[in-house]
Amino acid sequence: MKTQVGIIGAGPAGLMLAHLLHRRGIESIVLEHRSRRDIEETIRAGVLEQGTVDLMQELGLADRLLAQGQPHHGFELRFGGVSHRVNMSELTGGKHVTVYAQHEVIKDLVGACERRGIPMYFEVSQVSLERVETDPVIRFVRCGDEAPSALHCDFIAGCDGFHGPSRQSIPSQLRTEYRKEYPIGWLGILTQAPPSNAELIYSGHERGFALISTRSPDIQRMYLQVDATDHIDGWSDERIWSELHARLEGTDGFRLTEGPIIQKNIVPMRSFVCDPMQYGRLFLAGDSAHIVPPTGAKGLNLAVSDARVLAEGMVHFYQTNSRALLEDYTDICLRRVWKAQRFSNLMTSMLHRFADHTDYDRKLQLAELGYLTSSSAGITTLAENYVGLPIEWGSLTECAT
Amino acid sequence: MKTQVGIIGAGPAGLMLAHLLHRRGIESIVLEHRSRRDIEETIRAGVLEQGTVDLMQELGLADRLLAQGQPHHGFELRFGGVSHRVNMSELTGGKHVTVYAQHEVIKDLVGACERRGIPMYFEVSQVSLERVETDPVIRFVRCGDEAPSALHCDFIAGCDGFHGPSRQSIPSQLRTEYRKEYPIGWLGILTQAPPSNAELIYSGHERGFALISTRSPDIQRMYLQVDATDHIDGWSDERIWSELHARLEGTDGFRLTEGPIIQKNIVPMRSFVCDPMQYGRLFLAGDSAHIVPPTGAKGLNLAVSDARVLAEGMVHFYQTNSRALLEDYTDICLRRVWKAQRFSNLMTSMLHRFADHTDYDRKLQLAELGYLTSSSAGITTLAENYVGLPIEWGSLTECAT
Repeated sequence: MKTQVGIIGAGPAGLMLAHLLHRRGIESIVLEHRSRRDIEETIRAGVLEQGTVDLMQELGLADRLLAQGQPHHGFELRFGGVSHRVNMSELTGGKHVTVYAQHEVIKDLVGACERRGIPMYFEVSQVSLERVETDPVIRFVRCGDEAPSALHCDFIAGCDGFHGPSRQSIPSQLRTEYRKEYPIGWLGILTQAPPSNAELIYSGHERGFALISTRSPDIQRMYLQVDATDHIDGWSDERIWSELHARLEGTDGFRLTEGPIIQKNIVPMRSFVCDPMQYGRLFLAGDSAHIVPPTGAKGLNLAVSDARVLAEGMVHFYQTNSRALLEDYTDICLRRVWKAQRFSNLMTSMLHRFADHTDYDRKLQLAELGYLTSSSAGITTLAENYVGLPIEWGSLTECAT
Repeated sequence: MKTQVGIIGAGPAGLMLAHLLHRRGIESIVLEHRSRRDIEETIRAGVLEQGTVDLMQELGLADRLLAQGQPHHGFELRFGGVSHRVNMSELTGGKHVTVYAQHEVIKDLVGACERRGIPMYFEVSQVSLERVETDPVIRFVRCGDEAPSALHCDFIAGCDGFHGPSRQSIPSQLRTEYRKEYPIGWLGILTQAPPSNAELIYSGHERGFALISTRSPDIQRMYLQVDATDHIDGWSDERIWSELHARLEGTDGFRLTEGPIIQKNIVPMRSFVCDPMQYGRLFLAGDSAHIVPPTGAKGLNLAVSDARVLAEGMVHFYQTNSRALLEDYTDICLRRVWKAQRFSNLMTSMLHRFADHTDYDRKLQLAELGYLTSSSAGITTLAENYVGLPIEWGSLTECAT
C-alpha cells in the first residue's frame, strides 16, 4: 500500500488533517485501532472554538454542527454564591464558541471521509512506524487479517493520542516531555434533563469545582472535582446530586435541574507537552503531542489547529518542494499550545480546591477571580482565550492560506 | 495629652493620614519610635502610583516630588534575551507612575507636618495601646523622659509596620492572618552610575530575577534574586555585577552601566494580610495590616490608599456622627489589598526561579510572560495594576470625596 500521508489515529487531529489534505488534492490513508462505533460513541469534549467551527465550515463539514450545535456567546464564572458572566462575543469582536459533542464531530468527519473516498481502516492492530527519518512505512494488521500490511508514505501524521506508538518513534534523547499531574480528577455525568442554565457555568466553590455544561435540549453534561484516586463506585447518583447542588446553588436563586444519570465516569487531570512535535518525516498532532486539563476546553481545539498547521506545511511542500513551513511546524504549534497550557492551568488552579492550599492561597484564588471578572482587560483575557487565540504563523505567515 | 486621632508610626500611612485629617480640621499626633534622621534616610521603595502622586499634589505635598521625581510612562519585561515594553500611559488612558524614593516622600511629609503644626514625637519608646474598644489611650515614653506619657484620643491609627504593637491589640481570636513566605530574597544595591535604561526593567532570567530601577541621574537602584538564607557578606561587589550582567544582557545589545556600590542589603520576600484591619476604635493601615513582596511596587501605595480610606471614614464620622464608612474600612481596603496581593504574587511567581519548579512550571512562566506581553488585553492588565487600581468604595461611594 502506498499513499502520500499515512495518518495514524481517527480522532479530531487525524480526521481533520485527512480532510484538509483532501481539499488540496493530497492523498492520505487513516488507520485507527478502535472500531468506528467505538470512536463515534465515546463521550469526550464538547466546546468548539470559533476557529474550529470556521474551519469545519470551510471544509463543508459543518451542516449538522450548524443545525444542532449550540452557539454560546458567553459563559459564567461562579464564586461567592453569585455568577459573573464573561460576555465572549462583546469582548472579542463578535466571536463565540459552539457546544457540540466531540463524538458528533467524529461522526461528521468519518461520514464525510466515506463520501469523499478518503480511505479509513478501523480496528487495525500491531501498528508500528519504521524509517520515519527517510522513507516512512507504517506496519499494521488489518481487521480480520493475519498477515501484516505495510503502508508506504511520504509523511506520517501521528494522531494516535497520548498512549499511541507515534511519539515513541522520536528518539527519547531528542525529545523533552513536560508534565504536570494534578491531584484531582473530574467526575463527569450525562443526565436526561432539560438545561439548568442557558450558558456553561464554571463554579469555584469551597467544596470544590463543578461545571454545568450541556449536550442537547434533553441531555446535560455536568462535572465535579473529585480526588484523583476516587473510584466511580464511591459516587452514588444521590451523592453526585447532593454535591452538585451544594457546589452550584448560591444566594442568587440559581437551581440545578436533576434527571436520571445515564453515564458517569472519572477522568484524571494532566498537563503534558512533547517538544519537538516532529522528527524526520513524522509529525505529531493532538493528544499524542500535548494534553491539557479539560478546564479550558482546549484539547479538541488544539488538535484541530495542529492539523491545520500541518496541512499547510504539507501543501507548501507538495507545491514548492520546500520544507520551510514543515520545519517550523513544532514552533508554530507550540506557541499556541503553551498559551493554551497557560489558560488551562489558570482555569484549573483558580477554580479547584487543592489539599496543599493555605488560607492565603485560597484568598488569592478569590482575588484572581475577583480581579479577572471586574476588570475590563482581565475579563477580555478570559474571553479571548476561551474563544481561541490565533495561530501564530511567525515569519512564514505568507505561506499560510 | 489629648487629640482626636493618635497615630502610631511616621511612615507613609501615618504621615499621609495626619495630612489628610489636618486638611479637614481634624487633630492628630504622630508617635514614632525611630529617630527623624533614621526614617528620612532608610532606603525603601521608590515607585509611586498615579493616585499616590495625585493625592500628594492635592495635599500640597508634591513640590519636590514633581520637580525631582521621574515620571515613567512604561516599563520593560525582559525574558528570552529581549525586552517587551508595557506602555502604561497608552494602555491606561494616560496614567503613569513616578519614580521617587520613599525616604524622600518621608522627608516631604515630615517637613510639611512641622510647617503645618502637626505634632510629631520621634524616638518614643514603650508604646502600648489601651482601651481600644471604647476610649483609647496610647501610653509611651518620650525621648529624654523617664516618666510615661498618656495620649487620650477618639481613634488610634496603627501605622506602625509589620512588627509594631498595634496589630497585637486586636484579640487574636478575632483576627485571621494570611501568610506566604517565599524561599527567595532580594539583594538591593545603590550604585553611583548613570541610568542603564530610561525605564525600569524587570528581568525573568534562567539564573533568576533582576531589576533595574533608578533613583536620580547619578544614583541607580538594582536588585537581584538571591536565596532567602543568603548573607550579604557572601555577595562581593564583583559577584553582584557579574550576576547582574548575566541576568540582564541579552542578544539585543542592552548593556548595564556599572559604578561604585554605595549600599547593599538583602530583604526577605513575604506576603501577609490581617483581616480585619480594625477593632473598636483602632484601625491598622499600611504594613501593620499587610505586606506584599516588592515585585509589584505596591507596598507604599497600599499604605497611602489605606490612609485615604481611613481619613474619609473619620471625616465622615466627625461630620455626621455616623460610623458607617469606618465600619466598612476593612472591606474597602482589603478589596484593593487582595488585588495588589494577586498582582505582586503574579509578578513574583512569573519572574523568579524557584527551586521546586519543574521544567513544565518554567515553560508555563514563559508562556505567561509571552501571553501577557503579546495580547492587548493581557498587557493592559499589567499596565492597569502597575499604575494602580482604583479604591472600590462600594455602596458608600457617595460618602467619599
